[in-house]
Amino acid sequence: MKLGIYGYGNISRGVESAVMQNPDMELVAVFSRRDPSTVKTVSGVKVYSVDKAVDFKNEIDVMILCGGSATDLPVMTPEVVKNFNVVDSFDTHAKIPEHFARVNAAAIESGHIAIISGGWDPGMFSLTRLYSTAILPQGTDYTFWGRGVSQGHSDACRRIEGVVDARQYTVPVKEAVDKVRSGSNPILTTRQKHTREVYVVAAEGADKAKIENDIKTMPNYFSDYDTTVYFISAEEMKANHSELPHGGSVIRTGKTGFDGGHSHVIEYSLKLDSNPEFTGSVLVALARAAGRMNYRGQCGCKTVFDIVPADLSPLSGEELRATLL
Amino acid sequence: MKLGIYGYGNISRGVESAVMQNPDMELVAVFSRRDPSTVKTVSGVKVYSVDKAVDFKNEIDVMILCGGSATDLPVMTPEVVKNFNVVDSFDTHAKIPEHFARVNAAAIESGHIAIISGGWDPGMFSLTRLYSTAILPQGTDYTFWGRGVSQGHSDACRRIEGVVDARQYTVPVKEAVDKVRSGSNPILTTRQKHTREVYVVAAEGADKAKIENDIKTMPNYFSDYDTTVYFISAEEMKANHSELPHGGSVIRTGKTGFDGGHSHVIEYSLKLDSNPEFTGSVLVALARAAGRMNYRGQCGCKTVFDIVPADLSPLSGEELRATLL
Repeated sequence: MKLGIYGYGNISRGVESAVMQNPDMELVAVFSRRDPSTVKTVSGVKVYSVDKAVDFKNEIDVMILCGGSATDLPVMTPEVVKNFNVVDSFDTHAKIPEHFARVNAAAIESGHIAIISGGWDPGMFSLTRLYSTAILPQGTDYTFWGRGVSQGHSDACRRIEGVVDARQYTVPVKEAVDKVRSGSNPILTTRQKHTREVYVVAAEGADKAKIENDIKTMPNYFSDYDTTVYFISAEEMKANHSELPHGGSVIRTGKTGFDGGHSHVIEYSLKLDSNPEFTGSVLVALARAAGRMNYRGQCGCKTVFDIVPADLSPLSGEELRATLL
Repeated sequence: MKLGIYGYGNISRGVESAVMQNPDMELVAVFSRRDPSTVKTVSGVKVYSVDKAVDFKNEIDVMILCGGSATDLPVMTPEVVKNFNVVDSFDTHAKIPEHFARVNAAAIESGHIAIISGGWDPGMFSLTRLYSTAILPQGTDYTFWGRGVSQGHSDACRRIEGVVDARQYTVPVKEAVDKVRSGSNPILTTRQKHTREVYVVAAEGADKAKIENDIKTMPNYFSDYDTTVYFISAEEMKANHSELPHGGSVIRTGKTGFDGGHSHVIEYSLKLDSNPEFTGSVLVALARAAGRMNYRGQCGCKTVFDIVPADLSPLSGEELRATLL
């Protein structure tokens, strides 16, 4: 299967390295909105301007879109699906229905498959929520994120005056996770579920007390959480906070039986050294499914909920039944 | 959707109670190979002889088959699929390809859907293995079972001379699980992964040393494991070992990145108070999918690998995207 990458950043490099682990996949080209001569891929695959993408219409089975959810993908996905099967990682949960509708219309018109919102949340965590809820309809589910770097929160801190660099970790509260795992079905506030830790490199002479206060009181991002701010040197930032680890758990607890007397706990958890590389690995598996679905004549916008699991694997149905069932 | 239950035992009662939690489902009848007048369902649903099942051909959308994997299902599933869409929980892993082939031929001939090997292993654990392997092709997966009651091992102990009753717990070795979770990719022998605990009620005057030795040296079942045997009273057995809890974990660890430098751990775990009720709950969700697939004109034998996740849920695609994605 022949793949293209559209947009070149952290996730794209995750996709690029994931393709190398999948012998049935080949990366044909990378398309960038920057001047191609300034972009160098790790694997040496050639970079073209996005204007040239349409020339590859017959060379690429699936294009993996690596733009941001805020402003890139809402425009990019409906546009690129006019000429290609596409996969994106649109992750603004509240706007998924709107994005779906726009992409679906364009995909149906052009006869392509678009798989949106791939990755681990939305993505693998969503799948776990669906399966668990279908099995245990009388129950509650909980999602915990972290310990891991939130790039959105890190960026928000970097915009504060006097901040040179910042890295924000989302941390699940152990007591809350344990309470959920016990099956006691607790009602938890935002503050009780996660704490936030921010590592800041401040400009020389900056007002650290003001920076700390600006972070802790920032609405939406921090004001509903208990946040701890640590001021560190640029060297320490580079040495200890250059990676992008993440993860978390989806836990559903529910009751069964004629008297609801039996409790069950389903837990799916991820511990990821590299968020962009894991996300890229999910996108490549989804690209395999997108190519197969379109090959069978399907079109329109799909999510992980609409994909036959076997379509994600390079193995045949027979091999899957013999080895993994 | 209208369901029937074929065969009435532990799992059937799990199915029966699960149906009550799903307002889109209705249990129409139970079919038993015993004299129907001797079988009483918990919910009061009427019991018929299996000979009468065919009379319900137009009243039942999906029949849930609750026979054993050793001798019942290999005959029952290909036979019943001649007249009904069916779901079974065939769990002899090594014989799945053979069972699949036989059921598939019969299902295609009659134009019905058969979903085989539903439950949690095979079933939800298999799905986790497929998804995790597709995402992290360079990795290893491990399955741990327990702590929980293995009915096959309990039965094997009950057949020993002098044993009045027995209950066998499969127990994962904590150190092995921790080693796997750490991402260190250990090679583990059968003995290193699980231990076995057997609680035995011995007949009066029975040779306990001989019973213990007979259990510990039993080939296939116990000889490859470290087994501990406890002799208890019938009262203690009833008070502390009447339930059928089970569970376990599927863990996949893998590497990503151009130099394979980043490790990832995916873990799916279940903690179940009642193995038959959880299995019954999975079978009911699968029945929903079987009915929908056949309604769309599909036929043949399927497994969890072939089912679009959304088909398991009573919610519409729109509702799923808005609430669970």
